[in-house]
Amino acid sequence: MNITIAENLKRPEPKALASTLEQLAARFGNRLVTSLAVREQHGHTTTWLQNQPPDAVVMAQETADIQDVVRICAKNGVPVIAFGTGTSLEGQVNAPAGGVCIDLRDMNKVLAVHAEDLDCVIEPGVTRKALNEYLRDQGLFFPIDPGADASLGGMASTRASGTNAVRYGTMRDNVLALKVVRGDGEIITTGTRAKKSSAGYDLTHLFIGAEGTLGIISEITLKLRGIPETIAAAACSFETVRGACQAVILAIQTGIPVARIELLNTAQVKCCNAYSKLTLPETPLLLLEFHGTAADVAEQSRNFGEIAIECGGGDFTWTTKPEDRTKLWQARHDAYWSVKALRPGAGVVATDVCVPISRLADCVGETEDDLERLNLMSPIVGHVGDGNFHCSLLCDVNDADEMARGEEFMHRLVERAQAMDGTCTGEHGIGQGKQKYLKAELGAEALDAMRALKRALDPQNIFNPGKIVPAA
Amino acid sequence: MNITIAENLKRPEPKALASTLEQLAARFGNRLVTSLAVREQHGHTTTWLQNQPPDAVVMAQETADIQDVVRICAKNGVPVIAFGTGTSLEGQVNAPAGGVCIDLRDMNKVLAVHAEDLDCVIEPGVTRKALNEYLRDQGLFFPIDPGADASLGGMASTRASGTNAVRYGTMRDNVLALKVVRGDGEIITTGTRAKKSSAGYDLTHLFIGAEGTLGIISEITLKLRGIPETIAAAACSFETVRGACQAVILAIQTGIPVARIELLNTAQVKCCNAYSKLTLPETPLLLLEFHGTAADVAEQSRNFGEIAIECGGGDFTWTTKPEDRTKLWQARHDAYWSVKALRPGAGVVATDVCVPISRLADCVGETEDDLERLNLMSPIVGHVGDGNFHCSLLCDVNDADEMARGEEFMHRLVERAQAMDGTCTGEHGIGQGKQKYLKAELGAEALDAMRALKRALDPQNIFNPGKIVPAA
Repeated sequence: MNITIAENLKRPEPKALASTLEQLAARFGNRLVTSLAVREQHGHTTTWLQNQPPDAVVMAQETADIQDVVRICAKNGVPVIAFGTGTSLEGQVNAPAGGVCIDLRDMNKVLAVHAEDLDCVIEPGVTRKALNEYLRDQGLFFPIDPGADASLGGMASTRASGTNAVRYGTMRDNVLALKVVRGDGEIITTGTRAKKSSAGYDLTHLFIGAEGTLGIISEITLKLRGIPETIAAAACSFETVRGACQAVILAIQTGIPVARIELLNTAQVKCCNAYSKLTLPETPLLLLEFHGTAADVAEQSRNFGEIAIECGGGDFTWTTKPEDRTKLWQARHDAYWSVKALRPGAGVVATDVCVPISRLADCVGETEDDLERLNLMSPIVGHVGDGNFHCSLLCDVNDADEMARGEEFMHRLVERAQAMDGTCTGEHGIGQGKQKYLKAELGAEALDAMRALKRALDPQNIFNPGKIVPAA
Repeated sequence: MNITIAENLKRPEPKALASTLEQLAARFGNRLVTSLAVREQHGHTTTWLQNQPPDAVVMAQETADIQDVVRICAKNGVPVIAFGTGTSLEGQVNAPAGGVCIDLRDMNKVLAVHAEDLDCVIEPGVTRKALNEYLRDQGLFFPIDPGADASLGGMASTRASGTNAVRYGTMRDNVLALKVVRGDGEIITTGTRAKKSSAGYDLTHLFIGAEGTLGIISEITLKLRGIPETIAAAACSFETVRGACQAVILAIQTGIPVARIELLNTAQVKCCNAYSKLTLPETPLLLLEFHGTAADVAEQSRNFGEIAIECGGGDFTWTTKPEDRTKLWQARHDAYWSVKALRPGAGVVATDVCVPISRLADCVGETEDDLERLNLMSPIVGHVGDGNFHCSLLCDVNDADEMARGEEFMHRLVERAQAMDGTCTGEHGIGQGKQKYLKAELGAEALDAMRALKRALDPQNIFNPGKIVPAA
């Protein structure tokens, strides 16, 4: 796909780079890795963008390691890129100007859990599954679930969300405070463990979603929840996407606190049936989850069932049996793989947009029309409660014509969402892939402000250069 | 009270100011007001800080008015201060360097309500009561309730919250997007109507809580909620503050979605009984509100009642009768006036701190001990679900000894909250009054970052100078 990445980035001077690597080697020994294979792994792993490996990778074990890498790199004007699990989708960990990647996977300690306060303090390399494993015995969980077992540092940095966001919010709503290593290696503390604060500018939210371009997150304080007494799952087929969306709108308006509502379009249901050996009716489908007390969940399910019937929904069945729940949701989580299995040779371009929920049916409908017109295959799954949906476009990178049609499709998808007062990305972030859409969405003044913020907090432009904000 | 306000602010040159007023007069005619009485009204109205009136007030009617005031002031290096209803509590609308106040009360139009999307677009002068009045017929409401009938622009600017925050969040969680007039009069758009976005730096949250120091908010897109089917109120007396706090911790851990939980300490209950002619037992009290379906509210109430008994709570009575609810909550809302009535001549210094909820009982207890030791009177009310509480300190400004004890009390209150990993302000903001506490809370690096952000977005330092960030 012929994506041009706006950048007038300079690679560091060879001498400066050599000096950097020498100092890092002296400090980190064999925790500094420069083999091509490892560097390429630390370029992007699940994206359609060209791999741009860093010049070296440092395996960090503690905050002091991050500080020292940043200090050494800053002295030499060498870029620094934070790396969690490499599951971002818009080129966030690519190294277009080279530089040093800090791999944070070994900074995976849960530093404190405060059960009474429903918060915990963790290192940035803790993954969400590892965290939930750790918390389970205390009856607590962290609700943000983007699908991939991403690191919490990466999730904070891309402002990730996922299937639970309709009830529990996104990373934006679930981080209380951060520690961030700034350009001179010193540490910025952005908040306290207080549940709310009006104390000064909101530094926490400035670093959430900054994709590592303003500093490196070295510690995170997260909000937690009690594991619900009862969890029920349900599936409900609809004749049309519009009917499914209408049901969701009514459910939210009447205040049913649904924990998850996922929309699968007909193409996606077919993929899931094939891949996960299910027998779902091959029409638009809503997958739902309800959390609460047993009585509460029963009432939520009943109320939703009534709404579903009103909106042309078919059989509405719900279950609290863990094995049935797991089967349904496993199919949802395997959506990406089910699409990949359709055409094993082809690439899958995963993208997302988000629109006001009243426009979702229109947006999905017009997107489906485009796919038909352009003769492309892209099942659609949506976090429908938020108006956020994903396309998984199958494209053969060796078929220039298909790639051109794919590019047209992607452009039109973003333009359509923006024309509906939506955004070019609900949860994947800007990275490299979506820089060209920011100006149309927010205007030149917002971009000016973002550039000014970047210059203010990273005057050397060493933190993950070439991401988010297009060059002026 | 001998509060020193850090400022090395220069007033504008007399010539520059005269030229500014001349240009404003030509543009705005009698909407430019320079009488001392009006200027003093636009200095702070409900604070203990010295009144510092602006040099002039412009009554804005539309965005273009804000833009023109900013352009004229910027050209002459004259400060610009946004004014909503003047109900902020830390000197946010004082004019320590003079300048021009933009009164936004006439920018009070609801521009659009999108019922299906549960959002609305408003001008910044709309007050929360006016908005809820406007929305009621559509079955919608905006949940943030700081007590005062503040303007939404002001509430966004101080990151306000209030009694509903435990369930619905604060202003931070309920603003989707802003339009902000920047220093050259152009407009920054910070977001779209999409419920979530990962598109670039979080400009929305940077302006929320910035107290008008980074630009002037000219338009706000807010999240709305459906009015709950049933609302129940309840009151429950406890032997100790600790028992009341423990009940709240258990309720939140078990996921009871309480809409409001307010703690009144014994002194506050006595005030309310006297002022609102109630007969509440004179021990620590929780006031609660539950929102949901009838069955849901009944279950929430029952479950909370069981927890209350476990924690030494007395009679737990709940009611869905509007008149009983109103009576209880009116007493809570009149808390400030009930305190003022205790000593009609004295001033009331309203302050707030916020701590992790596990420390709330300790924090309130030690605060009560301090009051006794210092022979001061300050009833305490708390948004206990958030760990946020208010003191209403009665002080006679003509009694130097009492004022000195009051100052000691306030300092110790903030230090105590910060030592408990809390914040010097949960919802009132920094303004002038709490600048001296920011460094102890977040460190020099966070202050550096805030100063850099201020310089980046307001290089002339014309937006509400002397607020939030202390001079370096």
